[in-house]
Amino acid sequence: MPFYSNPRDITAFDAKFEAQKIAFGPISFQVAHCLMKFNILATIDKAGGNGITLAELSQSTQVSEYALGVLLDMGLSMGLVWQKDVTYVLDKTGYFLLHDDMAAINLNFVQDVCYQGLFQLDKALAEGTAAGLAVFGEWSTIYPALKDLPPKAKESWFAFDHYYSDHAFPAIIPFVFKHNPRHLVDIGGNTGKWAFTCCQYDPEVEITIMDFPGQLAIAAQQAAKQGYSSRVHTFATDLLDESLSFVEGADTYWMSQFLDCFSKAQILSILKRTAQAMTPNSQLFIVETFWDRQPSAASAYCVNATSLYFSAMANGNSRMYHSKDVLALLQQAGLYVDEDTDNLGLGHTLLRCKLKPI
Amino acid sequence: MPFYSNPRDITAFDAKFEAQKIAFGPISFQVAHCLMKFNILATIDKAGGNGITLAELSQSTQVSEYALGVLLDMGLSMGLVWQKDVTYVLDKTGYFLLHDDMAAINLNFVQDVCYQGLFQLDKALAEGTAAGLAVFGEWSTIYPALKDLPPKAKESWFAFDHYYSDHAFPAIIPFVFKHNPRHLVDIGGNTGKWAFTCCQYDPEVEITIMDFPGQLAIAAQQAAKQGYSSRVHTFATDLLDESLSFVEGADTYWMSQFLDCFSKAQILSILKRTAQAMTPNSQLFIVETFWDRQPSAASAYCVNATSLYFSAMANGNSRMYHSKDVLALLQQAGLYVDEDTDNLGLGHTLLRCKLKPI
Repeated sequence: MPFYSNPRDITAFDAKFEAQKIAFGPISFQVAHCLMKFNILATIDKAGGNGITLAELSQSTQVSEYALGVLLDMGLSMGLVWQKDVTYVLDKTGYFLLHDDMAAINLNFVQDVCYQGLFQLDKALAEGTAAGLAVFGEWSTIYPALKDLPPKAKESWFAFDHYYSDHAFPAIIPFVFKHNPRHLVDIGGNTGKWAFTCCQYDPEVEITIMDFPGQLAIAAQQAAKQGYSSRVHTFATDLLDESLSFVEGADTYWMSQFLDCFSKAQILSILKRTAQAMTPNSQLFIVETFWDRQPSAASAYCVNATSLYFSAMANGNSRMYHSKDVLALLQQAGLYVDEDTDNLGLGHTLLRCKLKPI
Repeated sequence: MPFYSNPRDITAFDAKFEAQKIAFGPISFQVAHCLMKFNILATIDKAGGNGITLAELSQSTQVSEYALGVLLDMGLSMGLVWQKDVTYVLDKTGYFLLHDDMAAINLNFVQDVCYQGLFQLDKALAEGTAAGLAVFGEWSTIYPALKDLPPKAKESWFAFDHYYSDHAFPAIIPFVFKHNPRHLVDIGGNTGKWAFTCCQYDPEVEITIMDFPGQLAIAAQQAAKQGYSSRVHTFATDLLDESLSFVEGADTYWMSQFLDCFSKAQILSILKRTAQAMTPNSQLFIVETFWDRQPSAASAYCVNATSLYFSAMANGNSRMYHSKDVLALLQQAGLYVDEDTDNLGLGHTLLRCKLKPI
């Protein structure tokens, strides 16, 4: 579906309102955060169709009537609740904020990881650095900082990261194993989540995780715990160091939600070195959420929004790509796409690539 | 028009999307801020209906293609721009963000004054203090801090404040002067903006501004500059100090966008002391933007959003009120409403009040 190739069908009045909603976006966000955190939406939900009064809400949530008043009046304006005489009743948008775990995970990720640093988005984009990361300390990328983030930021980061993999892996794994991988090199495999999923799915597959030594130490520990030490191997490296080689000649290479952590130039370098390590019989699987391949404009919105996390907080130079950008880089690296499957998991695309014949 | 007294007519899919837009609100806000600040929207606007390519935009704005890419792809998702083949064209919401000065003023106010402090909204509401104000220093309310705010915060605060008065005063002044005020006591008159407007409108009216000495010093200076020293008088006081009396027996008292700076208990105290100073022939004018009296749900949204500025940044206990709250307090203070006029200026209401007969 080609998104955004026509002007919106929207009245001038509504467009003007949309502009105001954008201008007050941080306020509506913080109101939603408080309505969740203070258990207000959940209490209104429990009250059902007849709703609950401000005084009753104050009694059961221990939030002052003043605080409830400003939050709920904005909640009315945001369509989170509606008013039935003197009671508040949950409305549809409030329902999804409360019950759609994706909304809650995104909201907590934005609040705990991104909110403060996003104030520096202009600086980040002007400099090409993750300038917002300064709120957590002196780091140039977020990856080595993860273990030292404040507890809530760490929790929300991993919840966000895992949520999207958890939904993707079960949908993707049959597409990978129908091509019978025997030795899968998991490039940027982090702490081994995918490796263990594979070991569980297939009793014989061998995995080699390529990543920084820190991540690999945790992966090895986990492998031992889960009884996969004999099949999960590690290969410590810095994937951006062009002088370091890759594990060579495996039948399968794997990059899951990995390329979005790098700039185009870095991706080209990684793909070229992967291609060098591959044989004509090797296959390379790439999992990404491309914004143009999303099932709806709503999910394209979420994917495009996530790009700014990379700009302000993660590394200052990567993003959620348009599929055409990655396809062009694959071609330049001497690879071609043999299978291209959309809508796995949560808007994930699986590309199966092979070396171009010389 | 009774707002929010019915559930929204919205599909589950759209409500789910609305929840995601709220969750990513700070990101879309910062994207809009950068698109304005880096002159990107203005450059696209100038390119007209045929649009402009990314490469051309990069050349004329000096913004990197990476930065333009992440901003514009999110801009597509937000309906700020649309794509005509390989060019970007301004869309309606982008047009209003760029050309509606109210959107720009609100956006700058949220960015420069509120954004960072709003991170503490939960704390502010739990404590009943303007906890967000800590980003600017050790203050319990923003009013004495105004002169010491960082330049951009100060500029955006005054632009916001003046924008709403500038639109209101010309619309309101004939409604006031048809009641022939001879001595108008401007309660919380700040640096005299309204006083000078009155002096210009009526060659004989005398004004007494009641406020803190700091504000009055500036007002007196301005009065001298504008040649109104003989008609603009000052009365230094702390309006929240219940032991201090008001200017007594004037024919007209005036409170413009003043009561929204106080809690209900404080408003009642101020109104009671005003009533004590009034004679049966005195009139009290009150100008407020009540959220329930707005001409549209869009403006009610903006007014309700502004309440959270008071919660997090201004004082921790005031807000933009529902008209019924203020009407009830007037009644308790021994006053009644003689004239009640909505939709003056930008959603302003003018109340003319008198002492209830004993």
